[in-house]
Amino acid sequence: MGDAPGSFPRTAAVVGLGLIGGSFALALRAAGAEVLGVDPDPAALALARERGAIVSGAADLAPVAGADLVVIATPLERVADVAVAAARRMRPGAVLTDVASVKAPVVATVQAALPAAVRFVGGHPMAGNEGRGMAAADAALLRGRAFILTPTSRTAPEAVAVMEAVIGRLGMRLVLLDPVQHDEFVAQVSHLPYLLSLALDRAIADDARTVGGPTMQEMTRAARSPAVMWEAICRANRDAILRALDRFEAELAAVRRVLLAQG
Amino acid sequence: MGDAPGSFPRTAAVVGLGLIGGSFALALRAAGAEVLGVDPDPAALALARERGAIVSGAADLAPVAGADLVVIATPLERVADVAVAAARRMRPGAVLTDVASVKAPVVATVQAALPAAVRFVGGHPMAGNEGRGMAAADAALLRGRAFILTPTSRTAPEAVAVMEAVIGRLGMRLVLLDPVQHDEFVAQVSHLPYLLSLALDRAIADDARTVGGPTMQEMTRAARSPAVMWEAICRANRDAILRALDRFEAELAAVRRVLLAQG
Repeated sequence: MGDAPGSFPRTAAVVGLGLIGGSFALALRAAGAEVLGVDPDPAALALARERGAIVSGAADLAPVAGADLVVIATPLERVADVAVAAARRMRPGAVLTDVASVKAPVVATVQAALPAAVRFVGGHPMAGNEGRGMAAADAALLRGRAFILTPTSRTAPEAVAVMEAVIGRLGMRLVLLDPVQHDEFVAQVSHLPYLLSLALDRAIADDARTVGGPTMQEMTRAARSPAVMWEAICRANRDAILRALDRFEAELAAVRRVLLAQG
Repeated sequence: MGDAPGSFPRTAAVVGLGLIGGSFALALRAAGAEVLGVDPDPAALALARERGAIVSGAADLAPVAGADLVVIATPLERVADVAVAAARRMRPGAVLTDVASVKAPVVATVQAALPAAVRFVGGHPMAGNEGRGMAAADAALLRGRAFILTPTSRTAPEAVAVMEAVIGRLGMRLVLLDPVQHDEFVAQVSHLPYLLSLALDRAIADDARTVGGPTMQEMTRAARSPAVMWEAICRANRDAILRALDRFEAELAAVRRVLLAQG
């Protein structure tokens, strides 16, 4: 840890240097942490070093052994397994978090396998854009955005305290939510909007598309983000997304009724 | 007219100094036209004069008698009637256009009542934002956007030629469409996206909204635009909007099937 519980970490390891992990690494470095990177892709590590996001990196989890804070930012389907593997190498008292978009299954899996000395709290920064990888990473993506933490009755208070310090230093807004509640909320504000963007993008005929203005552009932007990432999110949060879809379809049916009544 | 058919107008009258009319007045003035304004609201006229959008204005249609080009930018439900009333006061050979979001009914009504000496072509700039009135008007809203003209077999070629000159000078992109085709296209790229934005905005629970990120913000922005304007659009283009809604719902049903198959 840094000097006291709740203090900003001296050394942080970011596992997964994609758009979000890379943005975190840049932001943590700018805030004064020594940042170590982990990524299986040598090009991502090289670019992260070149951009000053990390001071050193590795393809395996070795760097997490030296970190006060470990942030798991791999693709969603690998977050829980990588978090557990990282926890086994972390020093006692160090804090572990992740940035997965779906929290209940990740938190349950990690908590069940967590060594007693590692302090874990699930996290989710409400940030991102249609960019991909370390090349698109930008600390500015995070500033002003909500960072949701999802502590449970098993969460060490020190994990929340350290993350509170990090979130404040990065200019983000702390929101505390139960993991299940988190998944319901993001289904409504993030996962459902993506699916609507996708369906709209498919519903617009090619010749109509050529006259589209700013509304079409912004309503179909989300559809351009990586499909493989969204497939994993939809699989992990399927039931909450279906509930959000039901809410939306009820509202859309009301809109259709109003249209029909104008006949 | 200006010096020749197809030349940029020396004097233009803009009827209706709202977001779009006001933006046109600013853009036409910046491009060198003498712009006259018509608006029943004295505050809109005063602000248009103050912002340099018009050189003079009136609450009634008197100014259109002196214009080479008349642009009708009133609320949709009044466009056809105001266009016909303006046409009766316009000088022979002058060009009349409008900026209504729905074209087939407006074009049919205006063409049926048009004095032979006035040259009319329906128009629709694919621009706008959630702002309202002359205060939000901005010539930059128009630049780079599509300006759709909807000539028919009855349209004087000079009307298209003059508007082509205007559209070019304003840095907009000319698109020619049949009025019915226009209404089908904008139902898909503009009217449907608005209705989806509205239904999404209503489907998001208040407590979920507080964690929303950039995707939620951009997908619900259109829902903030003036409801009264959209009610008129939906009434005027109801059938095309229902067809676009059918296309969307078929795509959304496919999305739901994929989700369910992941069970």
